[in-house]
Amino acid sequence: MYITVAGASECPRELLDLAYQVGTEIAKRGHVMVCGGLGGVMDAAARGVHDEDGTSVGILPDSDRARASKWLSVSIPTDLGHARNTLVVLSGDAVIAVGGSYGTLSEIAFGLKMGKPVIGLQTWELERRDPRQRGLIKARTAAEAVDLAEQLTLT
Amino acid sequence: MYITVAGASECPRELLDLAYQVGTEIAKRGHVMVCGGLGGVMDAAARGVHDEDGTSVGILPDSDRARASKWLSVSIPTDLGHARNTLVVLSGDAVIAVGGSYGTLSEIAFGLKMGKPVIGLQTWELERRDPRQRGLIKARTAAEAVDLAEQLTLT
Amino acid sequence: MYITVAGASECPRELLDLAYQVGTEIAKRGHVMVCGGLGGVMDAAARGVHDEDGTSVGILPDSDRARASKWLSVSIPTDLGHARNTLVVLSGDAVIAVGGSYGTLSEIAFGLKMGKPVIGLQTWELERRDPRQRGLIKARTAAEAVDLAEQLTLT
Amino acid sequence: MYITVAGASECPRELLDLAYQVGTEIAKRGHVMVCGGLGGVMDAAARGVHDEDGTSVGILPDSDRARASKWLSVSIPTDLGHARNTLVVLSGDAVIAVGGSYGTLSEIAFGLKMGKPVIGLQTWELERRDPRQRGLIKARTAAEAVDLAEQLTLT
Repeated sequence: MYITVAGASECPRELLDLAYQVGTEIAKRGHVMVCGGLGGVMDAAARGVHDEDGTSVGILPDSDRARASKWLSVSIPTDLGHARNTLVVLSGDAVIAVGGSYGTLSEIAFGLKMGKPVIGLQTWELERRDPRQRGLIKARTAAEAVDLAEQLTLT
Repeated sequence: MYITVAGASECPRELLDLAYQVGTEIAKRGHVMVCGGLGGVMDAAARGVHDEDGTSVGILPDSDRARASKWLSVSIPTDLGHARNTLVVLSGDAVIAVGGSYGTLSEIAFGLKMGKPVIGLQTWELERRDPRQRGLIKARTAAEAVDLAEQLTLT
Repeated sequence: MYITVAGASECPRELLDLAYQVGTEIAKRGHVMVCGGLGGVMDAAARGVHDEDGTSVGILPDSDRARASKWLSVSIPTDLGHARNTLVVLSGDAVIAVGGSYGTLSEIAFGLKMGKPVIGLQTWELERRDPRQRGLIKARTAAEAVDLAEQLTLT
Repeated sequence: MYITVAGASECPRELLDLAYQVGTEIAKRGHVMVCGGLGGVMDAAARGVHDEDGTSVGILPDSDRARASKWLSVSIPTDLGHARNTLVVLSGDAVIAVGGSYGTLSEIAFGLKMGKPVIGLQTWELERRDPRQRGLIKARTAAEAVDLAEQLTLT
């Protein structure tokens, strides 16, 4: 499985810890972690994957790797700017959103639009607009978020 | 000025009327209307622009113009799928969101991320996460939405 | 019809004159001209369209309109960098390439890959690799190039 | 180092053998191989990398992994169509082009445009248009192509 971790490049310390734990949980279970490849939540999740000898992929908005997290297994410069958010989401069978910037909100929206499971950790509250479509699902811990990502992808 | 109209390809009748009025208001004031080029809100806004002899641009997710609204002045096939949403937002000096699908939510998020004025008509409620960044602004009528788009772009 | 004009942002004077003539020919016949929206061949073609009261669209690699040719009817910032070349080609029913930079070569390649008529004015010489696919067609004058674009699109 | 292998999804047997050898050479030297992720040259190069326990990345034009080569270490669905060619080239410090389809020609053009070393194996002949820019460099064997990719990237 590929699991996307969405989150901001700048965020409070506690979100970095949470993102690190999400990274370790994904790697322990043998999944590939995909993210936007920069700092903050992305860097912390990549470090978590690294510490468990897992595989992580960073899809960068830039034309080169200068700003890529050093913990990534593989990085992909796209030079697409914000449009790379779509690719980050497409690459995951499920999406785990950590924290609440506008970039993360765009990734939550794309995940839900594409019908993927989207699990939130301390992220946006979204009202449910369309009962026919799956909404954002809340988790309280990193382990619960990855559990939900696995279970909802299988069904 | 270029003004983006974001909205779903399928939506209730009343939102179509509202989108049509937004299109007429934009055209009357001499602005170019940009949208995603398909049906629903996009088609209604393009028809509004057409009826006031204005200029509208549709940025399509597809590789050809088969699904383009017939009311558009110009259509741009991109073959980028959902990634074209970024382009729709980039092309506007301000964004007016009509109604509340997940695609629209991604466009609201991109608009706010890019620091553009984003005005909502019967769309998502978003809590304000970061007081340093401008949030989504509500309008009640098409004219008020275009007024706000003009005023907030100038400041 | 939409006709794409591909060409470099820096080029010799004589190519600018040729691009200008291509622009006037496209506009005189009522077609929409699409280009990359910057200087050189793109700017000259847009000026040609402008002088004949035609419609031109510039699809920019940048995130804003700062470098857009002032002669364009409509400009679209994409923030896609070189990936915007694909969009420039997709938007044309036929492609006219003027001059020979590497960017132009990528647009010739995409046009041929997509099965569109690609007409060259003082551009690359390409050997024919696959007899099942249409190759690059040479023209000597702007009028002949637009004639060929029209004829080959219809067939 | 990341090295891009560009080539067609359908091609003669001898090109597949050559692409396989390019893949093995890249992996033996510890580089990451990047390609378009589909069949033909891409699949053969990925198999070469796999047989030497190396790392390969496929950047797909599609929205899912259904057509991805099974030999890839990591695959990235982009849903960008032909625009994904830019990403394939951006991800490599150097580009090795095998064979001569139009898609490959677009990747050669982007590589040269971006100033990257581009090495050709049985691919297009390009006249040198601009003496200030580096042109396409021919190699005769897979080992020579990877040698050149290494040497020209360092300088």
